[in-house]
Amino acid sequence: MANSEYEYVRRFEPADALPLSNWIVVRIDGRGFSKLTRKYDFKKPNDDRGLSLMNAAALEVCRSIVDIVIAYGQSDEYSFVLHESTSLFDRRAAKLATTIATAFTAEYCMQWSTHFPDQPLTRPYPTFDGRCVCYPKRKLLRDYLSWRQADAHINNLYNTTFWNLVLGGMSLIDAEQKLKGTLSADKNEILFKQFGINYNNEPEIYRKGTVIYRSYEACEQPILIEDMPQSKTQLEKERKRKQKATIVVEHRDIISASFWDEHSYILGTAKCATIDDE
Amino acid sequence: MANSEYEYVRRFEPADALPLSNWIVVRIDGRGFSKLTRKYDFKKPNDDRGLSLMNAAALEVCRSIVDIVIAYGQSDEYSFVLHESTSLFDRRAAKLATTIATAFTAEYCMQWSTHFPDQPLTRPYPTFDGRCVCYPKRKLLRDYLSWRQADAHINNLYNTTFWNLVLGGMSLIDAEQKLKGTLSADKNEILFKQFGINYNNEPEIYRKGTVIYRSYEACEQPILIEDMPQSKTQLEKERKRKQKATIVVEHRDIISASFWDEHSYILGTAKCATIDDE
Amino acid sequence: MANSEYEYVRRFEPADALPLSNWIVVRIDGRGFSKLTRKYDFKKPNDDRGLSLMNAAALEVCRSIVDIVIAYGQSDEYSFVLHESTSLFDRRAAKLATTIATAFTAEYCMQWSTHFPDQPLTRPYPTFDGRCVCYPKRKLLRDYLSWRQADAHINNLYNTTFWNLVLGGMSLIDAEQKLKGTLSADKNEILFKQFGINYNNEPEIYRKGTVIYRSYEACEQPILIEDMPQSKTQLEKERKRKQKATIVVEHRDIISASFWDEHSYILGTAKCATIDDE
Amino acid sequence: MANSEYEYVRRFEPADALPLSNWIVVRIDGRGFSKLTRKYDFKKPNDDRGLSLMNAAALEVCRSIVDIVIAYGQSDEYSFVLHESTSLFDRRAAKLATTIATAFTAEYCMQWSTHFPDQPLTRPYPTFDGRCVCYPKRKLLRDYLSWRQADAHINNLYNTTFWNLVLGGMSLIDAEQKLKGTLSADKNEILFKQFGINYNNEPEIYRKGTVIYRSYEACEQPILIEDMPQSKTQLEKERKRKQKATIVVEHRDIISASFWDEHSYILGTAKCATIDDE
Repeated sequence: MANSEYEYVRRFEPADALPLSNWIVVRIDGRGFSKLTRKYDFKKPNDDRGLSLMNAAALEVCRSIVDIVIAYGQSDEYSFVLHESTSLFDRRAAKLATTIATAFTAEYCMQWSTHFPDQPLTRPYPTFDGRCVCYPKRKLLRDYLSWRQADAHINNLYNTTFWNLVLGGMSLIDAEQKLKGTLSADKNEILFKQFGINYNNEPEIYRKGTVIYRSYEACEQPILIEDMPQSKTQLEKERKRKQKATIVVEHRDIISASFWDEHSYILGTAKCATIDDE
Repeated sequence: MANSEYEYVRRFEPADALPLSNWIVVRIDGRGFSKLTRKYDFKKPNDDRGLSLMNAAALEVCRSIVDIVIAYGQSDEYSFVLHESTSLFDRRAAKLATTIATAFTAEYCMQWSTHFPDQPLTRPYPTFDGRCVCYPKRKLLRDYLSWRQADAHINNLYNTTFWNLVLGGMSLIDAEQKLKGTLSADKNEILFKQFGINYNNEPEIYRKGTVIYRSYEACEQPILIEDMPQSKTQLEKERKRKQKATIVVEHRDIISASFWDEHSYILGTAKCATIDDE
Repeated sequence: MANSEYEYVRRFEPADALPLSNWIVVRIDGRGFSKLTRKYDFKKPNDDRGLSLMNAAALEVCRSIVDIVIAYGQSDEYSFVLHESTSLFDRRAAKLATTIATAFTAEYCMQWSTHFPDQPLTRPYPTFDGRCVCYPKRKLLRDYLSWRQADAHINNLYNTTFWNLVLGGMSLIDAEQKLKGTLSADKNEILFKQFGINYNNEPEIYRKGTVIYRSYEACEQPILIEDMPQSKTQLEKERKRKQKATIVVEHRDIISASFWDEHSYILGTAKCATIDDE
Repeated sequence: MANSEYEYVRRFEPADALPLSNWIVVRIDGRGFSKLTRKYDFKKPNDDRGLSLMNAAALEVCRSIVDIVIAYGQSDEYSFVLHESTSLFDRRAAKLATTIATAFTAEYCMQWSTHFPDQPLTRPYPTFDGRCVCYPKRKLLRDYLSWRQADAHINNLYNTTFWNLVLGGMSLIDAEQKLKGTLSADKNEILFKQFGINYNNEPEIYRKGTVIYRSYEACEQPILIEDMPQSKTQLEKERKRKQKATIVVEHRDIISASFWDEHSYILGTAKCATIDDE
């Protein structure tokens, strides 16, 4: 089709491909969610409806984008990990971040009424910002995920203690003051002594957050992407396998090695001797 | 709150602030919309419900983000222009693109049933990718907008002719073949001679696309952002004025100078002698 | 010629083209020059040999790279300005910075013995780091140059006073202490009252730094680059004109408008109505 | 010291820190060296004076910048490798590229007369452009170095054959024509049959290029940088050890594993289990 004299302005569009051989994390964060949680009376410190909606939205995002190898969520944030060898959208940062963030937002809005049947969603509608972060080594990616899970733990222990104090009659300011400078052990003790709560018995979804990934029977574990070169037919076949795979939603420790040892195919650790093992 | 040993991974997050003194365009594009328009039987070449939904979504985005000085949309795309002096989100590219793209997506999904009352929205839900493009001069920004409007014209003339041929009984392939290599004049003639259509009488929303901006009475035109320095009080006052301003949705020529002469405050041409006039 | 299996690593080379329609400043700075000036006994506060060597090196850089429209130097730094429309090295940042920095370094080293005939240059040899900075508006570029010239003035007034105090017998620490918190007027007064020096009579090369540009007779002023489109023949002709033009080395005020009014062709202000005038 | 009103222009300087945990290669290339080699009658296909000057310059660059763990050169190019954990100049790309490129240029110019005693260096002086490339894995870095050495081999085999044909009386065009489409085996055969040259007996400096690195006795091998955390005292001690270490200049195979097995400390493969081993 004909082009106009103005088309030269395209040349201002920047090249924003992320560097090759880097794990790509797209993390999305709820925008203005403290306001939103007040508006819809989210239960403190954790609202099961809100968490289940986040996880349901993330599940659909993982289902539709097979290049996502694992996702981890807590509070109003979710991190989606793309394999270091992905060529999705030619690794263009803006395309990756906006595609995942809008897919998540659409699911969150459309599934709202299922999780909050009594509270119609009104404007301003929930939205999520997003960004890409590159991790050049598998170890760094795992530390990234550990960071988010450690953060979930730290925040949840604080919030659980804080809201028990408040629900027990303490003012917000007094509760904040009481917790200032306390260590984990102190909060555990407050919970146990004052409220009879053993923090370790709190639901794992609160303490650990949520991890989502494709699960395979041992006999059908995925052909590792690194086993280059792959033909288009192989890639398409692999893609279909992923689309059919069971997606698992779990609340468990991803900091320690056991999760990764059990699911070594997720980050392709088994046979990928060519590029990233040193 | 305490930090974990893993927090060092934050240092991998890139600085992505866009350069100062550049107009920022965030353009969003519908993902997989040819499939979506088939699924919901969009009328060809233009579907009024689809266009009105796009415009309604864009209107809300403009209403909620007062830093947007003008927006232009056509087909399944919309361009939102942020003033060259904006400090929204510290000009961070990922935050700007994802915030606007998710706000648009949320509105599009939530307003769907108003515009398509008979067709419930089902998965995969509509999503939009987005990107930031910087234009260092006002003239270049205007050329960008002219490019999109010229593109709307070129596509609509083609599509109008194409679909009239098809609705008139020609096969898709034959219609494509017939239009190959034709000029505007040829298409105008086909429309007029074969279908009695004077293209210039086609609705302006099809031929020109849609422009959205804040409208002010002459007496209350905005204080130009460039009149630096501004105090926080002034900025807040200006922000409130913008929130109260009438937002106009029009279908008209933005290539020729007249639109810009009439609304010189939109790109702040009137008094901004300090930085960008040369 | 044949390629090896390893050639894929080229894909890791980043695209680093600077954005179009931006003035490009390549500023180079002497590395470790306080040590170097002590090693070769540079005269304080200004060493004429050192300044003339800097200027001689910059002159040759300007002569060999005709895309440089103006250069400004002071102390151990030089800023080279490339026209906003330059396509030199496809505007690649690393190529521009290293080419100019190495050309300057080569000249500085090779011309050393002319300016310091009694002091052979020994290792570590003088080197210069460099960087590209983009300025999207002519006004901003002028402010950049004003910044460097204002900096030259501020530093030279301080250094002149400081070293007169020291040469007058004051210790380095006492001189520093005496000048702490003083204004320009204070320093001017110290110079005048204690040393009979009228700062405004100090040599302009010390007070203003050095500006280098091509000079033309009125009748042969350059065809403005913005008068697009230009054929290859025209560009080549223009290039040859530049190579033949007289290059001027001056010590004068480039902050006020008069310099730019007199030499409007330098930044192409005269007729460039197409892109950057707003 | 006081600042001027113009200082705001500093905010246009971009942040250009290279991503953490990536090997950084700074490759420099001679600018216009085909002209330069003709001007100074470089011997074809290899000029020993030119090669020894390149290597002498690179040696001094390695000596002065202890963060360089290995360098590889061939023809008019040199690649300097900075350890993936380097914090030199806060990993700023422009600073790294210009510092290494100007240091190399200064050495090349200043040592010229030693290597070309009969040919005074005249303007235009030799210069080198440079760029930074990041490699996120050790394996990729080794492939980069293999790429350059394979390139040296391919070019040298071609050039050796080409220039023997020319020196044997063939025209440049005929020689080029004769070699078009030939494989390595063909060129080896031409050399052997027509000129009695066994390519494998050619000097290694021509066939393999040059590798430069610090050599240690087994008992004094460097403390690996990855053994974090290191105190400032340790880093300073390590730095001094490097400054005292013998620097080796060799012409040998760095594609096969044996070089790296023998010198595992160069890329810190021995104990760096913390970050990059997976």
